[in-house]
Amino acid sequence: MAASARRSRPPAAPVVTLTTDFGTRDAFVGIVKGVILRAAPAVRLVDLTHDVPPQNVLAGAYALAAAVRWFPRGTIHVAVVDPGVGTRRRALLVETADAWFVGPDNGLLSLAAPAAAIRRAFDVSHSPVRLRPVSRTFHGRDVFAPVAAAVAAGTDPRTLGRPLRAIARLRTPAPRRRGGKLVGTVLWADGFGNLATNVGRAHLARAAFLGRRLSITIDGHVLPFRPSYASVPAGRALALVNSSDLLEIAVNRGSAAERFDARPGTSVTVGRA
Amino acid sequence: MAASARRSRPPAAPVVTLTTDFGTRDAFVGIVKGVILRAAPAVRLVDLTHDVPPQNVLAGAYALAAAVRWFPRGTIHVAVVDPGVGTRRRALLVETADAWFVGPDNGLLSLAAPAAAIRRAFDVSHSPVRLRPVSRTFHGRDVFAPVAAAVAAGTDPRTLGRPLRAIARLRTPAPRRRGGKLVGTVLWADGFGNLATNVGRAHLARAAFLGRRLSITIDGHVLPFRPSYASVPAGRALALVNSSDLLEIAVNRGSAAERFDARPGTSVTVGRA
Amino acid sequence: MAASARRSRPPAAPVVTLTTDFGTRDAFVGIVKGVILRAAPAVRLVDLTHDVPPQNVLAGAYALAAAVRWFPRGTIHVAVVDPGVGTRRRALLVETADAWFVGPDNGLLSLAAPAAAIRRAFDVSHSPVRLRPVSRTFHGRDVFAPVAAAVAAGTDPRTLGRPLRAIARLRTPAPRRRGGKLVGTVLWADGFGNLATNVGRAHLARAAFLGRRLSITIDGHVLPFRPSYASVPAGRALALVNSSDLLEIAVNRGSAAERFDARPGTSVTVGRA
Repeated sequence: MAASARRSRPPAAPVVTLTTDFGTRDAFVGIVKGVILRAAPAVRLVDLTHDVPPQNVLAGAYALAAAVRWFPRGTIHVAVVDPGVGTRRRALLVETADAWFVGPDNGLLSLAAPAAAIRRAFDVSHSPVRLRPVSRTFHGRDVFAPVAAAVAAGTDPRTLGRPLRAIARLRTPAPRRRGGKLVGTVLWADGFGNLATNVGRAHLARAAFLGRRLSITIDGHVLPFRPSYASVPAGRALALVNSSDLLEIAVNRGSAAERFDARPGTSVTVGRA
Repeated sequence: MAASARRSRPPAAPVVTLTTDFGTRDAFVGIVKGVILRAAPAVRLVDLTHDVPPQNVLAGAYALAAAVRWFPRGTIHVAVVDPGVGTRRRALLVETADAWFVGPDNGLLSLAAPAAAIRRAFDVSHSPVRLRPVSRTFHGRDVFAPVAAAVAAGTDPRTLGRPLRAIARLRTPAPRRRGGKLVGTVLWADGFGNLATNVGRAHLARAAFLGRRLSITIDGHVLPFRPSYASVPAGRALALVNSSDLLEIAVNRGSAAERFDARPGTSVTVGRA
Repeated sequence: MAASARRSRPPAAPVVTLTTDFGTRDAFVGIVKGVILRAAPAVRLVDLTHDVPPQNVLAGAYALAAAVRWFPRGTIHVAVVDPGVGTRRRALLVETADAWFVGPDNGLLSLAAPAAAIRRAFDVSHSPVRLRPVSRTFHGRDVFAPVAAAVAAGTDPRTLGRPLRAIARLRTPAPRRRGGKLVGTVLWADGFGNLATNVGRAHLARAAFLGRRLSITIDGHVLPFRPSYASVPAGRALALVNSSDLLEIAVNRGSAAERFDARPGTSVTVGRA
């Protein structure tokens, strides 16, 4: 018990990551950092991204979920994609075995902190460390930043809010089997135009597809399954398993999102060649 | 006196913020950080924004002014929006009760450091710590970065430049009363398309408008005054008091800048409903 | 020898810079930082730019080369513009008198680390510190980040890879003399639209052009040679020597890239007025 409690205690100078839809044109992100540094001067701040499409909770949840496993134990992840700011949606502090999460209770944290991984969760909407008066439009500054700083400074999380049994969860689509094929969908396009799908390495393994010659179909085009972008000539499309262990559609030195006019929800079919 | 002098001395590892129109495509911002870290290795660097519209001194001044109160005492704010670089415009180091400011003497610092708040100001154009030869195009690197680093390292500011009595100031528009109404203007649009105006919470209070049902007019459209974005259905416009205590025009989950084709200078009228 | 070895040893909390074409929409850059901070918690991370045009190795090489001299001795520069990721191209660790470099062996490091400056180079493709399994698409995370962190943590570089005699180099165009003139080309446009050329201050000096009245021709337009942007009225074009000691074409408060529809490779001619 003692060892287990110690395991998740933040180290002396914890890392605090930030994931938002604030963009970088305005000083919003800088203000959040100022509030954190006032209360926890030693933290090391890392931006995951501030270019989540505005109010797109699912896109923010994917970005956060892709990143958290690469950070030091005890990292505090602050995420703010918060169309319900100023309403009664709760503000969350969540502890898992490896990390802390702070953000709105709208599903944003739920892919990075799946139910089975959560040790403790707190409603910090009325946390004693919040900045008063709490604005109705900027809880990143007034609620989430001071709570994250308090955790970083070693404050007992039980003093920061009210215990919760569960947090809001997002539904994410799973691939389906149809005939001998697997039908998935595009989850998001990255900045290169590579299309991540909901077909994971594990799905390919369960369907006995790994190690086989596969053909992947998107938008009526049949693509080869290859190990790396440069396995096909420049300008050619292919499918591969990406660095998040997801099936990805790409164009070597080009943009698959443009080539196939694809977006989240576009179908992708996996079969044997 | 001694206590007062100690109050504004930077702490051991001060925060240095950066606000520029350099963008993030080039290495300019990184170079400024390198120069600072060479002379003051322990500082904690925070970007406010580097996407101030090119040469838009007023926009940079607003961004800086919105942010500074949220930072730790003793923070050093470096701001560079500097169309007069290489001319005789002065380079400034300014001390207020809470912070230090470094940048060109073109008004950029004047909203964050109002006259009444300034304790000391220095012309650091020919500071002994400047990098020589000073380029004619990049004083962020050659003048402002080394001066900020010197302040961070605890150098007596009197050794960094020549005392000044006043700094250049920007004029900003104030709302006017007309009949029973208040006529203001849009100051800027943030990255969400929310429109900040020059009508502050204090103006609304002085006009005995706070606590009343108000109607706000922009571009011929009459909008309700509500507490938070989600107080109206998605896609609907509203007015509210934003996190900087300014009247703001917004569209819930949308862009008011697009909806009303608004820009800095667009009129906004406040009356009773 | 001992003194020389000590000179390049990283300090206690070294700076690690990052230069990539990852963009900032996705969490890729944050993930690289997480991996570095796990192994080297004390490093200070600085972004040079993540907006190198996708797969444009030459643009990345210029950005890195412009920046490195402004950083503290012992800085570790990680650069990833890597269209050949997942192929047999080597992964490099390079030591110069002043700095360390980590990135793919495709020429990206070669302008910042010219042959004469290199002390030691290592192939770290199969470094013992790499993350396993190494993905075929994200060596920034799986190879370059752990190698950079190991150097930052003081690991003997000889344990990180296999010594190399040379690294891949980019060819860069040199200006030519034609008649009494110097004919150069545009290397890149910065975010303001200023056009950097391959004509350096040294070329102007060797051609006995410095101190003379010069006329610069681009796209059929003859421009004056002046010391600073504001030496001409707003909206007027000029040439000057920029902060990297390169001849630059600019428009005061405007964009020369738009004005002259110029891009890398566009010719620029220097003659006497």
